[in-house]
This record gives sequence, structure tokens and C-alpha cells, in this order.
Amino acid sequence: MDIGFIGLGAMGSAMVANLLKAGHRVRVWNRSPGAAQTLAEQGATVVGRVQDAFAGDAVLSMLADDRAVRAVLLDNGVLDGAPVGLVHANMATISVALAQELAERHAALGLGYVAAPVFGRPDAAAAARLNILAAGAPAARGRVQPLFEVLGQKTWPLGDDPVRANVVKIAGNFMIASAIESMGEAAALTASYGVAAGDLLEILTNTLFAAPVYKGYGGQIAESRYEPAGFKLTLGLKDVRLALEAGEGRAVPLPLASLLRDGFLDAIAHGDGAKDWAALARVAQRRAGN
Amino acid sequence: MDIGFIGLGAMGSAMVANLLKAGHRVRVWNRSPGAAQTLAEQGATVVGRVQDAFAGDAVLSMLADDRAVRAVLLDNGVLDGAPVGLVHANMATISVALAQELAERHAALGLGYVAAPVFGRPDAAAAARLNILAAGAPAARGRVQPLFEVLGQKTWPLGDDPVRANVVKIAGNFMIASAIESMGEAAALTASYGVAAGDLLEILTNTLFAAPVYKGYGGQIAESRYEPAGFKLTLGLKDVRLALEAGEGRAVPLPLASLLRDGFLDAIAHGDGAKDWAALARVAQRRAGN
Amino acid sequence: MDIGFIGLGAMGSAMVANLLKAGHRVRVWNRSPGAAQTLAEQGATVVGRVQDAFAGDAVLSMLADDRAVRAVLLDNGVLDGAPVGLVHANMATISVALAQELAERHAALGLGYVAAPVFGRPDAAAAARLNILAAGAPAARGRVQPLFEVLGQKTWPLGDDPVRANVVKIAGNFMIASAIESMGEAAALTASYGVAAGDLLEILTNTLFAAPVYKGYGGQIAESRYEPAGFKLTLGLKDVRLALEAGEGRAVPLPLASLLRDGFLDAIAHGDGAKDWAALARVAQRRAGN
Amino acid sequence: MDIGFIGLGAMGSAMVANLLKAGHRVRVWNRSPGAAQTLAEQGATVVGRVQDAFAGDAVLSMLADDRAVRAVLLDNGVLDGAPVGLVHANMATISVALAQELAERHAALGLGYVAAPVFGRPDAAAAARLNILAAGAPAARGRVQPLFEVLGQKTWPLGDDPVRANVVKIAGNFMIASAIESMGEAAALTASYGVAAGDLLEILTNTLFAAPVYKGYGGQIAESRYEPAGFKLTLGLKDVRLALEAGEGRAVPLPLASLLRDGFLDAIAHGDGAKDWAALARVAQRRAGN
Repeated sequence: MDIGFIGLGAMGSAMVANLLKAGHRVRVWNRSPGAAQTLAEQGATVVGRVQDAFAGDAVLSMLADDRAVRAVLLDNGVLDGAPVGLVHANMATISVALAQELAERHAALGLGYVAAPVFGRPDAAAAARLNILAAGAPAARGRVQPLFEVLGQKTWPLGDDPVRANVVKIAGNFMIASAIESMGEAAALTASYGVAAGDLLEILTNTLFAAPVYKGYGGQIAESRYEPAGFKLTLGLKDVRLALEAGEGRAVPLPLASLLRDGFLDAIAHGDGAKDWAALARVAQRRAGN
Repeated sequence: MDIGFIGLGAMGSAMVANLLKAGHRVRVWNRSPGAAQTLAEQGATVVGRVQDAFAGDAVLSMLADDRAVRAVLLDNGVLDGAPVGLVHANMATISVALAQELAERHAALGLGYVAAPVFGRPDAAAAARLNILAAGAPAARGRVQPLFEVLGQKTWPLGDDPVRANVVKIAGNFMIASAIESMGEAAALTASYGVAAGDLLEILTNTLFAAPVYKGYGGQIAESRYEPAGFKLTLGLKDVRLALEAGEGRAVPLPLASLLRDGFLDAIAHGDGAKDWAALARVAQRRAGN
Repeated sequence: MDIGFIGLGAMGSAMVANLLKAGHRVRVWNRSPGAAQTLAEQGATVVGRVQDAFAGDAVLSMLADDRAVRAVLLDNGVLDGAPVGLVHANMATISVALAQELAERHAALGLGYVAAPVFGRPDAAAAARLNILAAGAPAARGRVQPLFEVLGQKTWPLGDDPVRANVVKIAGNFMIASAIESMGEAAALTASYGVAAGDLLEILTNTLFAAPVYKGYGGQIAESRYEPAGFKLTLGLKDVRLALEAGEGRAVPLPLASLLRDGFLDAIAHGDGAKDWAALARVAQRRAGN
Repeated sequence: MDIGFIGLGAMGSAMVANLLKAGHRVRVWNRSPGAAQTLAEQGATVVGRVQDAFAGDAVLSMLADDRAVRAVLLDNGVLDGAPVGLVHANMATISVALAQELAERHAALGLGYVAAPVFGRPDAAAAARLNILAAGAPAARGRVQPLFEVLGQKTWPLGDDPVRANVVKIAGNFMIASAIESMGEAAALTASYGVAAGDLLEILTNTLFAAPVYKGYGGQIAESRYEPAGFKLTLGLKDVRLALEAGEGRAVPLPLASLLRDGFLDAIAHGDGAKDWAALARVAQRRAGN
């Protein structure tokens, strides 16, 4: 297919490389030009204006957050100039409010819109092992499904309303942060009785909690290994805020999300904002005087 | 071996059956006589006084809680009359305070003491698939290890101080309750955007959270299936209280455990105390007006 | 003095009436015209364009929230057209972020800016009993001080940086909401032992807690009297959100504010959003199954 | 009257002095003898056995906590030996569970029982300015009312069931701790914008929160003056625990009390357990990295 790809961070770059390998023609655009050059060597066409990428059979975007999506796609009229019928799959983790706004704008302009946030870090993107949550009109989803098959291990269909995919992604990240908090408190408790975090977590992550999230973050907590950051703590705060805002929009109290938010702020206040979000576990330790 | 076994609830009965099958001679005692009869037919010797079970090569006990342990083993002088050198493996989930007291009493009386709480419900006990957390003096642990091999899939050694095994068990149960709360809030959030709990949890428990705890309780939450109770919600409150008390003893704040405690009380206030503790998820729903 | 006044809700109207009575000439503007007519009869000059009110010796504004301030004063260029040297006292409860933005815009345009949020409901405004928190450059504050003396019982100076007045107002409202939550939980607790909220609160608000906030809201809670709303619960949520945002901007965790936010959402989810914010106390009751 | 008085801490000693001044004959008992000597010089009769104080027209007791009440009055059979018809007014802050147990024991033994916890610190006791919460059978209350009039500024009648007075006392202390937390978070928030705690609290405690609790603790927080302790932080934790236990007994969730409990533990973990409980405010500061 002849596609555009917008946003070449660690995630986007890995995804484009896979699309190129699978034989797709990809026009790429990024705010800063560095990443584009590497992909040009792998066969991508680098375009200088975002609207040149927003064309072809379909366009995928993988931008950092609401602010970036708004700046790149909404504030400068890119959508207004896009060819009617073009399908856009937005793979970023964004707020449900922006997701709703985007869905409406695309519909008003006769553009297809698929919300397709993913679970998986850059290494999973590189290995084409992403889990893709896809929601949008069936025809639009059908158009980009062949691309998703290149990018991920599985596409999880979530119906016609794009917001549904975003809220599931937000809920998933909230659950990950909850798991970190839970391990952090459990480790602070057992440490006070002389049991090292590693001893606790080795048992639990090999039995009841033998899941990727617990094994991964549990390993980091056991070793107090929070640098380099796989996912920055400040981004964790952002994602918990997305959960709280989504809840507020529907009057859904989320006391555990509130607790996480306060914990992330505590971590940031103590200088851990740029560390991996597993460093949330240090807050539990610090509360106990350690 | 020639052993005693005290406490024949669903867990204890399943464990004794396995010990008998493995060829051990087992004297059993229970407060109420029903369960003992069934085991007698399988070869157990039923004794009428608890001190008759508290003898032999080793004695295992699997009592309900602190109150039962105190009533059966401490208040009536059973320990004082036990033969010096006898090893007692206490497999109940008890408070760290009682664990400490028991360790000291056994030591003072020249008895071996192993704290050996388990992860696993009655079906796991029947299948000899328990995970056993064992702490105590090495010689004492060595004595009962052959029995643990009959009862469980794995024994996790936790050192010489018995309290260490109890605090790990308490921390593990706290983590399970945290996972339930996390799923409950996530499901309340996505439901408010039209995504059923089952759709959310199918994705998450097959990807990031593909662990027994999440699959099991996630399935119950998806189907609102809280009866019959595998583990009663009031027992969940008891276990979270054990975590809070253990934390209080060492000045370790556990805000997530506090949140769980309030949630369990809310559930009990609304009539769900006898349901499975996964019904904690209903509290998140109710807060959102559903 | 010859002044402008922008925003004629219940608060603003009462304040303008006092300014007129004190002999000031007041040009008034409001988005919807109704309130202005009544004040015209009392001597105010009604102007049709907000910039006509933003002129004279000084201008006071009392708008509902960030959104209204932004719409009326920022988005339409009113500030840009204002005469250099004019002093503007913004008496609304707004976010610290907007306060900072306004301070900078006024400074860049050569306008004086005083942040002057108030404590007091419409009845206090009518009685000229407001407590006014004033921050801004001394010269600017000096200009509007004679007006404040007409409007309030006391002006509390808070220094040169306008944001300081806003954050104190936000902190004060957070403390009020905290007092309501505290009484709500206390009343839920004693009610479960047969002590009516009125019996509890009569004692406490006449002894340790003999303060206006406790007496006022305590009386409402004792009588379950939440309508008509003196201050709507949805506005209470807004103000707690201002506290949380202010905290987030400086990495200050506020767990009690988080708890209040979840409580307000719970109240809204149960249909109490338009009631007085003292109805937060019903959430504590409901958690207990009542 | 001819009365006994048990428990001569700072509170009890001040109360006995007032009773003596009012002309009552007082037999006093204390676990440690020091305080009794001083009162002997003021006319008290010191007795060596607690049962000698538990006699006469009435007996008042002011012991430290559940443990002391249990040790002095229950475990050693003092009640069993008391003369039928004697009225005992228990002025300690105790748990509702113990209050219930005491009420039943007194009734079974034909003794009158009045629960009469107080609001007021030792200086208020010395000045006979206590607020006394009194519950119990009317006849029993009538017997000790003349003594209460000597000791306090007001007696607040709470009906026949003694537990009612205890739960109101517990709720009141919970509200005080809540006020401290609220001021602590508010001060941490405004400090991050350059407003000193003293500037914030001077305004609020002279306007909306012009009540003894806020003025007193607000002053301590403004000056970071936490020593000497008027009421130790560890006792504050104890009292919050009484609230949580009382709530648990009736399935009443108290999330704000849970938050306070975690805050007190955090303070203790950081070495502030022996400081005044207003030092809870330091926890909010510390969370913010200060």
C-alpha cells in the first residue's frame, strides 16, 4: 500500500521499519528531522510538510500525546486539506475528549478514522509484537487491518466508536500503574520484616502473578533498577491523568487512580520524574522512612 | 511418617487425603467431627483430644485464623504438653504478631516451629498443587519438607524466622485484592464508555495480565459471578486487616491497603460480605451510580 | 471613582449595588442583560460592549470561572484595547495557571493587575461583609483599595504576586470541602451507633469547631438540607480540581483533595450535582449502606 | 460527696484538685504513687488498693486507654467486689467495643455506669473548662452530675446508652485530626507558591475557621512548633484507630480516617511519634519534597 506515517519517535520508527520490510511504500514526516533520515535509508520517502504524509491509501500516526496530536493534525488545518475518503489510524494514547473530537472532525470532513492505540514498548514494536486495540467504522478498520497485521501480534477489535479503543488503552495503563503500586507497598511491608523485595516478587511473579507486567516491573523493583527509563514516570502521571479525566467526564470515581496520581507527584517532587515509572515503588518505601 | 493433622476444613481435608495416599499415618483432629469421619474411611486415625494429634514425628495444622489458632493451640495448654523436639508446621494465614508469639512459645518449650502458609484454594490443595511458603529453623523445615512435597507443587524457602513466611503470605493476599480493585475500577471506567467488562478483561488478561489471578478474578468480574464464594469477602477484609496491622507494627503506611479496607466495608455494608471477594469490583461500579 | 464592573451574577450584582450606594459611578457589563437592568435602576450605566466597561479609573471583574474569564477578557482582545495604566482587579476564583497568564498579559500591556478573590457568599456580598484576598503591585492595590473597603469587611494583603491571592482562595475552599467531608464521615460513624448527626454536630460546632464553616455546613448536614444550593456541588468539584491542578503544577500531592474529588464525583453520579456542596456528606452515608 | 478517683495523670490530677476545692472528699488511686502525694497535700486520701477507691457515693476514673482500663478495672476483679448500686463514671477515651463490654459488666453486677469522655486538655481540666459528654442511665447520670459541674463548663447529655458518648468523643478527635491534615495540605500547597503557612492560616483562622481547633493547631503549624507535645502523635494514631475500629464494627467506611492513619504512620516512621499530633502537617510537606 501507499501510506503516510506521522510521528517517528522510538515507537513510530520501529513501526515504519516493519512496514517498509513488508513492502509498503511509506511517506514519513516528523517534527524533528533526525529519525526520518535513518528510515530514508531503509526506503521511506521523507516529506517536508505533514499534509504530504496525510494522503495515499491510508495514514498512520503515532504522536506523543494530546498536545502533539492537536498541534500536528488539528491546529494547522491538515485534516481540512486531506482527500475525502482517506483513512487515518491514530495509534497514540490520547484523552477520550480528544478522541471524541477527532472522530467528529474526521466524520465531518468525510475522512475515515480508526483509533488504534497499542500495548507494547519500542522493543515490542520492533519485533512486530504489538497488541493493537482498534475501533472505528468497519470499512475504515478493514482498510488498515493489513497494516496492523504487519505491526502487531494481534488486533483486538473494539467496535465502531473510536473512543472505545482509547478508553481501553487508558484503563490498561491504569492497571499497570496499579500493579506497580501494589508491588511497591507489598515490598515495603515485607522489607520491614526482613524479606527482600526480590524474594517476595520471585515467589509471586512465578505463581499467582506470572504475567508480563508483574515479571517486568517486579524485576525492576527487586533490583531498584529505574534507569534508563523504558517509560518515563512523568508519562505515567500523564496516563493516570487521562484515566481521571475520562472518569470525570462520566462521573466515575477512581480512588485507586487518585492514589496513583498522588504517588507519581510524590515521586516527581523527589526527583524521580525522568526515571522509569516503576520508580513509583520508591514512594511506598519512602513513606516507611526508608 | 507418623503425623498429626489439626484442622479439617476444605483445605485441611484435601491435604490429609493426599498425605494418606502417599502412605503416611495421620492422626486427625477437628473441632467439629464431620470431616474426620470421611478421612477415617480413607485411613486416618481420628483422635478426640487435640493433644493426641499434637505428637508423633511432626504435626501440621491448618486452622482458620488467629482466633482458631489461639483457641486450639494456645489457650488450652496443648503446646505445654507436647513432646520436646516435636516439629509443628503451622500452615494457616495468621497475623505477624501471633506468628511471632507462636515462634517464641515453641522455642521456649523446645518444640520445632515452621510457618508454612500456602497459596492455593481447596481445588489446588486437592490436586497437590499448593505453593508453600516455608520459614523456620533449617532442621525443623527439613523434617516436614517430605510432607510439603506431597502437598504442594513447590516449597518456597524463606529463611529461619517464621514471621517471614507469614508476611509474604499477607503481602500476596494484599496484592490479589489490589488486582481485584484495579480491575473493578478499570471496568467501571470503560463501562461508562460502553465497553463491557468482559471485552476489557479479555484483552488485558490475555496480554499484559495473563496471570492466574487476573484470569480467574477477571472472569468472575466479567460475568458478575460472585456466588458461590471461593473465598469470602469477609475473609478478604480480614486479610487486608492483617496487612494493615503488620504495617502498623513497623510504621509502614499502606494507602492502597487502606483503600481496599474501605472498599470491603462498603461491600459488606451493601450485603456482599458472604459473596466471593471479587465482588469488591461492585463497589467501583456503585460509586459510579451503577 | 469612575469604574467598570464586569460580571453581574449574584455576587457581582450585590457588589455593584454597594459601590453605587457608596457614590461611585459604575459602568456595568454582563453577558446576559437581565441583571444589568436592575442595577441601571439603581444608577449604574449599562454598556453593550465589554471594552466600554474596561476603562475609567479602575475595573473590577467577577466572572464565574476560567472559561468565562478567558472568553470575556482574553479571547476577544479586550485587554489589548485597554488604556495603559488602567488597573483591573479580578475577583473571580480562577486557576493559578490562568492567574499567572493574566498577570503576564496585563504587565506586557502596561495594565495594572490585582488578584482579589473573596470569601463570602452572595448574602455576605450584599452585606459588604466579604473577606478580600488581595495581591498585586502595591500601586495597583492602592488604587482599588477604596473600592474593596466598600465591598468587604477586611482586605487581606498577600504581596505583589497576584497568584498568591488565588492560591490562598483555592486552599481555603479546599479546607471548606475537607470540613464537610470530615463532618460527613463523623456523622456516618455516630449514626451507626444511634447518635443523630444533629446531636453530634450541635456539640462539636459549639465547642472545638465553633466556626462559621462548621456551624453553617454542620447545620445543613444535621437537617439533610441541601436545597436550594448556596454553592453548587459541581462548583465544589471545580474548586477541588483547581487545588489539584495547582498542586500538580508544583508537584505537591494532596491526597485529601483527591479523596474529595472522588467524593464529589460519587455525589454527581448519584444525582446530587445541583445540590449544595454540603451534600458531599451523603456520600459517606451511602458508603455505609444508608 | 464521698468519692473515689482512679487515674492521676495530668488530666486526672487537675480534676481531683478541683473536686477537693469544691469540698468533696476524694480517695485517690494511681498505678504509680507520685501524683497521689501532691494531691494528698491538697486533702485527698491516698489508697493503696484500687478497690478502696472503687467505693463511696460514686467513683470517677480517668485512665489512659483500653489497655489501662482493662488492667485496672477488669482483669483484677475490682468490679466484682464493688458495692451494689455504686455509680462509676468512666471519663477515658476508649473503644466502643470496650465501652459496650463495660456497660454490660456493670449492669450485670448491679453497678451504675456512665460513659463521660471529655474534650479538653490538661489546662482546660485545671480551669474546670472541660466539655463532658455523658451517657448512661438517667439515675446514674444524675448521681455524678454535681461532680461534672465542678469539673467542666458544660455537660452534653447523650442518652442512656453509654457507647453513644464514646463514639461522639471518637468522632470529635477524628474531626480534629482531619482539620490538621486539611491545614497541612493547604499549607503545603500555598507554600509551593511562596505563601507562608502563617500567612495562609492567619487569614483562614480569623475568618471561616475562627474556631479553637483551627486557631490552636493552625498556630503550631504556622510556627512548626510541635514540641513539647500537648497531645502526642502516637495517641492521635490510637484515636484514629478507635474511629476505624468503631466504623469496622458497623461496616462504615471512613476513607478520611484511613488517610489520617497512613499519615500518622508516615510521621512515626520519620521520627515524629513523640511530637504533638499537629506534626501530621509535616507529612504533607514531605510528600511535596520539602
